[in-house]
Amino acid sequence: MNVFEHPFLSGLLGHEEIAHLLSAEADLAAMLRFEVALAQAQEAEGVIAANVLHNIEAMAEGFSPDTKALKEATVRDGVVVPELLRQMRAGLDDEAARALHFGATSQDVIDTSLAIRSLKVLDLLDEALAKILDSLDTLQSRDGAKTVMAHTRMQAALPVLAARKIASWSNPLIRHRERLGAVRRQVGVLHLGGPVGTLDALDDKAIAVTNRMADALGLQPCPAVRHTERDGLAELASWLSLVTGSLGKAGADIALFAQQEMDEIELSRGGGSSAMPHKVNPVGAEMLVAFARFNATLVGGVHQSIVHENERSGSAWALEWMILPQMMIATGAALRTAGTLLDSITFVGTGQH
Amino acid sequence: MNVFEHPFLSGLLGHEEIAHLLSAEADLAAMLRFEVALAQAQEAEGVIAANVLHNIEAMAEGFSPDTKALKEATVRDGVVVPELLRQMRAGLDDEAARALHFGATSQDVIDTSLAIRSLKVLDLLDEALAKILDSLDTLQSRDGAKTVMAHTRMQAALPVLAARKIASWSNPLIRHRERLGAVRRQVGVLHLGGPVGTLDALDDKAIAVTNRMADALGLQPCPAVRHTERDGLAELASWLSLVTGSLGKAGADIALFAQQEMDEIELSRGGGSSAMPHKVNPVGAEMLVAFARFNATLVGGVHQSIVHENERSGSAWALEWMILPQMMIATGAALRTAGTLLDSITFVGTGQH
Amino acid sequence: MNVFEHPFLSGLLGHEEIAHLLSAEADLAAMLRFEVALAQAQEAEGVIAANVLHNIEAMAEGFSPDTKALKEATVRDGVVVPELLRQMRAGLDDEAARALHFGATSQDVIDTSLAIRSLKVLDLLDEALAKILDSLDTLQSRDGAKTVMAHTRMQAALPVLAARKIASWSNPLIRHRERLGAVRRQVGVLHLGGPVGTLDALDDKAIAVTNRMADALGLQPCPAVRHTERDGLAELASWLSLVTGSLGKAGADIALFAQQEMDEIELSRGGGSSAMPHKVNPVGAEMLVAFARFNATLVGGVHQSIVHENERSGSAWALEWMILPQMMIATGAALRTAGTLLDSITFVGTGQH
Amino acid sequence: MNVFEHPFLSGLLGHEEIAHLLSAEADLAAMLRFEVALAQAQEAEGVIAANVLHNIEAMAEGFSPDTKALKEATVRDGVVVPELLRQMRAGLDDEAARALHFGATSQDVIDTSLAIRSLKVLDLLDEALAKILDSLDTLQSRDGAKTVMAHTRMQAALPVLAARKIASWSNPLIRHRERLGAVRRQVGVLHLGGPVGTLDALDDKAIAVTNRMADALGLQPCPAVRHTERDGLAELASWLSLVTGSLGKAGADIALFAQQEMDEIELSRGGGSSAMPHKVNPVGAEMLVAFARFNATLVGGVHQSIVHENERSGSAWALEWMILPQMMIATGAALRTAGTLLDSITFVGTGQH
Repeated sequence: MNVFEHPFLSGLLGHEEIAHLLSAEADLAAMLRFEVALAQAQEAEGVIAANVLHNIEAMAEGFSPDTKALKEATVRDGVVVPELLRQMRAGLDDEAARALHFGATSQDVIDTSLAIRSLKVLDLLDEALAKILDSLDTLQSRDGAKTVMAHTRMQAALPVLAARKIASWSNPLIRHRERLGAVRRQVGVLHLGGPVGTLDALDDKAIAVTNRMADALGLQPCPAVRHTERDGLAELASWLSLVTGSLGKAGADIALFAQQEMDEIELSRGGGSSAMPHKVNPVGAEMLVAFARFNATLVGGVHQSIVHENERSGSAWALEWMILPQMMIATGAALRTAGTLLDSITFVGTGQH
Repeated sequence: MNVFEHPFLSGLLGHEEIAHLLSAEADLAAMLRFEVALAQAQEAEGVIAANVLHNIEAMAEGFSPDTKALKEATVRDGVVVPELLRQMRAGLDDEAARALHFGATSQDVIDTSLAIRSLKVLDLLDEALAKILDSLDTLQSRDGAKTVMAHTRMQAALPVLAARKIASWSNPLIRHRERLGAVRRQVGVLHLGGPVGTLDALDDKAIAVTNRMADALGLQPCPAVRHTERDGLAELASWLSLVTGSLGKAGADIALFAQQEMDEIELSRGGGSSAMPHKVNPVGAEMLVAFARFNATLVGGVHQSIVHENERSGSAWALEWMILPQMMIATGAALRTAGTLLDSITFVGTGQH
Repeated sequence: MNVFEHPFLSGLLGHEEIAHLLSAEADLAAMLRFEVALAQAQEAEGVIAANVLHNIEAMAEGFSPDTKALKEATVRDGVVVPELLRQMRAGLDDEAARALHFGATSQDVIDTSLAIRSLKVLDLLDEALAKILDSLDTLQSRDGAKTVMAHTRMQAALPVLAARKIASWSNPLIRHRERLGAVRRQVGVLHLGGPVGTLDALDDKAIAVTNRMADALGLQPCPAVRHTERDGLAELASWLSLVTGSLGKAGADIALFAQQEMDEIELSRGGGSSAMPHKVNPVGAEMLVAFARFNATLVGGVHQSIVHENERSGSAWALEWMILPQMMIATGAALRTAGTLLDSITFVGTGQH
Repeated sequence: MNVFEHPFLSGLLGHEEIAHLLSAEADLAAMLRFEVALAQAQEAEGVIAANVLHNIEAMAEGFSPDTKALKEATVRDGVVVPELLRQMRAGLDDEAARALHFGATSQDVIDTSLAIRSLKVLDLLDEALAKILDSLDTLQSRDGAKTVMAHTRMQAALPVLAARKIASWSNPLIRHRERLGAVRRQVGVLHLGGPVGTLDALDDKAIAVTNRMADALGLQPCPAVRHTERDGLAELASWLSLVTGSLGKAGADIALFAQQEMDEIELSRGGGSSAMPHKVNPVGAEMLVAFARFNATLVGGVHQSIVHENERSGSAWALEWMILPQMMIATGAALRTAGTLLDSITFVGTGQH
């Protein structure tokens, strides 16, 4: 029961588009793209010959992985890359087989694939944030002048404008969008370091190949590969959790305001009950709190994985794989849920009980 | 990219049998079993008529859910049950439709389904623990008398018998098996409380129906339903994390002992490298550490969900769904990995560098 | 700003008695007790002579540590014990100096000191649980027959008796008391293993000395020392978090019921506001939620520390020191807060808005 | 046993200067500064008269809190401010007593006090980072050209220059310093919103008073107060955990390289053992791992507290108090430990076993 790609729970808790970007299929496609871009950069820098590149490009065009063999080999190797390369090389002549992946290592491929796809996920999340801010603007225009009761420490305090409440939901989201630039710069980097991170095999072409390849893949080149420097991913995880946290705050507020006894917010959509058909449950608001607590639980795991021993830690790396993708999906799901929820609420506007 | 049910990573990180027990399919089957067991207990206690029960049993026999509709409804309702009941009722006459799920609520069905399947997962985990303890006994018999170097604070200290090391891996696992009885008693309970936990609709038949139903489903009856008392699930999560933690300790030890410079342990199986084909990587040992840190990260989320407001918290409940199943799969995967790993190690036995 | 031993926050968030049990002073006293009990057991088994024991006992009687020197040495050694022994030995003759701590290691002393004091903390927590259950019984007798509104998914559902609510608070606490026996057995163990856990120096007297010493200190002897087996401490941490979690659930309920708009519970005591003197804030209820989330955050750290590499991990061990004591204090504080809170609430008992 | 302010553990695990900045004493001083700065800004804007301000300034000059009364009141109120104001007002005439804290609320005072002192903590941490980068530069100059063995997946891989290893430690720290600007902007804000965040009492002087006051306190003014927007604090917590994570990675590397069997790094300083006096334990390296795992555990708690219900959540707020200060101290301690450690290591430089 993985709720994020689940036959009936994924509509509530998952996010199809992000799940697709993080699928094995998209991963393999990005890894293929890595190998081709590497060969292209090497050809441009004279490391490999044009006909070798063409052989690699042709293979990539028609490559279809044997997933069963990939799975078996991954159990043994801990990574998919050695077997994936073996399958690719089966479609190449000897020279191209030697040229494929030349100078690179498994982690280069896997980390770069994640970088490529994470940027796309961040695009989707940013769009969703922008859309929610639009919804909040609309809400502000329509309901902002209504009076609602402010509550401090779970007690009715004084009346305020709904505008104040709405601004407390939108201001953090505006800041999260501003933070995104810095996150993208740390996440969207090319990983190309070779076996122990020194890119020795490429010799004096290392920088030129790196720059060309980064450019082709829409990533930043790094002067030193970040195989063991995982702060960028922890920053990503932290950002995801900031986003769901802020949405969770709005969700908590809405669930409280939608209590019948408080009746400050009405929901035009809500969940039915198997036993009490008259109820309108603030399901979306509840899910926002759940996503916030979920990501706040997981964020620490990515921080744990910064302790990445030596030149490559299989442990710390696998921990990232287990955690980061689901944080991205949960964030996407939270944003979709928030979008729907915010379009379905109306401030009642009595405010003076 | 959910690593636990992933085309090529699941062999390394997943557990097919447990994933199946936690699948939507198994969940729906257990929910169907709940409804039939409820009807049977009610018929036995004279709450519903025999022909009504037979109508329900016949429906259950041939029931095939419309998953697409289940998914759409779950977005709205936050739970699958209302739509699932609607689909079931479509195959019943009016009287049976009214009798189906009589007195129960969504949470009864969902929590009981999890209880039924968690017990099966625990059976598998216990078997795996027993098998690992056998492997450790074999290792003890074969290598226990060899001398290895003990290390404290990452420094060689004094030679000890390998037996000491092996015992430090097996003793916690023995305790985890002993702990399992208590965990099973808290996890394997029937949830039957109705809309607000009072089972009012069943009136003076409440206890008798509960007892019959628990008996039929192999669960413990509770005098008071635990809709909002989630300590049993947090205890389960804690136990899962204890198990992976202890295996992670063994994994850390093995990875350290398998360092070529230390060479206290040899691995007959290990992972290959895309760039350095001569290496034998202790992949299994690394994964044990990763599973330990993963569950140690997630365990707190289930503890957070004990704060379950009012008579049913959609937030706290969904948080359990997101976290618990993957902890169970990770634990199963860790046990399988440990089994394979322990069968592949040999203590070298020099110990006196 | 350590809130638990803070000039003005500790009344709200700390627990004086538990903080004292976990103080450096109590730690040093228990470590002294360890050394004396070890010498006594060794004398009884003929490992050391009677006059040597008397020299040690006399030293212990009058021992007063030089805390400044302890602090300086701990920076270097990572543990206090080597310098503490040096100070103790300064008050002994040569033979007694050699006999002191004979066969033992730093971790024996430190872990046993924690075990001794943790049992006392658990006594206090159990007493507090018992008292709260009494308060809940009283509440049940007085208010149980009143009708309150049950809420599911943050929506008013159906009226129930207050008794139902109260039982949902007390039942988990009853289970926590039942769980305590198992926790005590895992926590209250003597740690005596010597440098690498094999107690070699004591030779054939190892078991007899262990048994005598455990008996004298009120602890369980272990056939194999648990220097690297930290499941008992993780079980303790999990139990602490179960307790605060269940109290947090009650706190969340009370804060919601005390909302003026809901008015299901009245508080005879509550917090004032600097700006809105008319409000009565459910401070205690809020703190219960905070303690629950705090312990649920920390519990994972103790689980992380189960991954205890080799025969002694300075990292994993220090992590326990940083986390466990504050979880104990937070649990004590939560129980005290709950006691006061439960004695101050009255169910209003309208229930049918 | 709070290790951070502990008689003998604080040298190892605490940080005196940061602990002082986060002490009750420094908190009270900053709160006093808040009230004076508020009065000054109000006087400058004509909200209060000059003689009223002088009365407040004179009181502040000589104010000495009754800590016992503060502690008792905090139990009741959940915050220290109402009683603190009462004590301050006892030293004022009626008009000044009314003017003191005019328009503000407890959260303004407490959050601003934390902001003021967090900036100072960040100054110290940044200085420490700069110093460590200097140490790494020195290490690079001296040992960078030596050859060491790179290890991937816990296996010796290929020789690399020590320079590569050192760069993998310093590069993340350089990025953390770059990140600090953004963190400071979010942390160093003036909180001035009044009871429900609208600063109503100050009417059309609200902006002018805010700007003046922020300027006087060295903080950023916010157009809307962030009582319920806690992303800045979660960003701070994330940054702290990034720093300790990166130091923990270096610590893990050093502990592994200092294994006698590997002997790639020699420590000129290290810890002694009570039972094995010949050992040199890499205590500092171990502590770096412990601090990393500690902050990675706690960071999630601050993210949980972003779910800050309504206009002020006593629960979420208290959770911040419990967690954030110790994360700051742990980060300071990690930086001090890293500084000492890096100055004590020498790469041996064989690298080709």
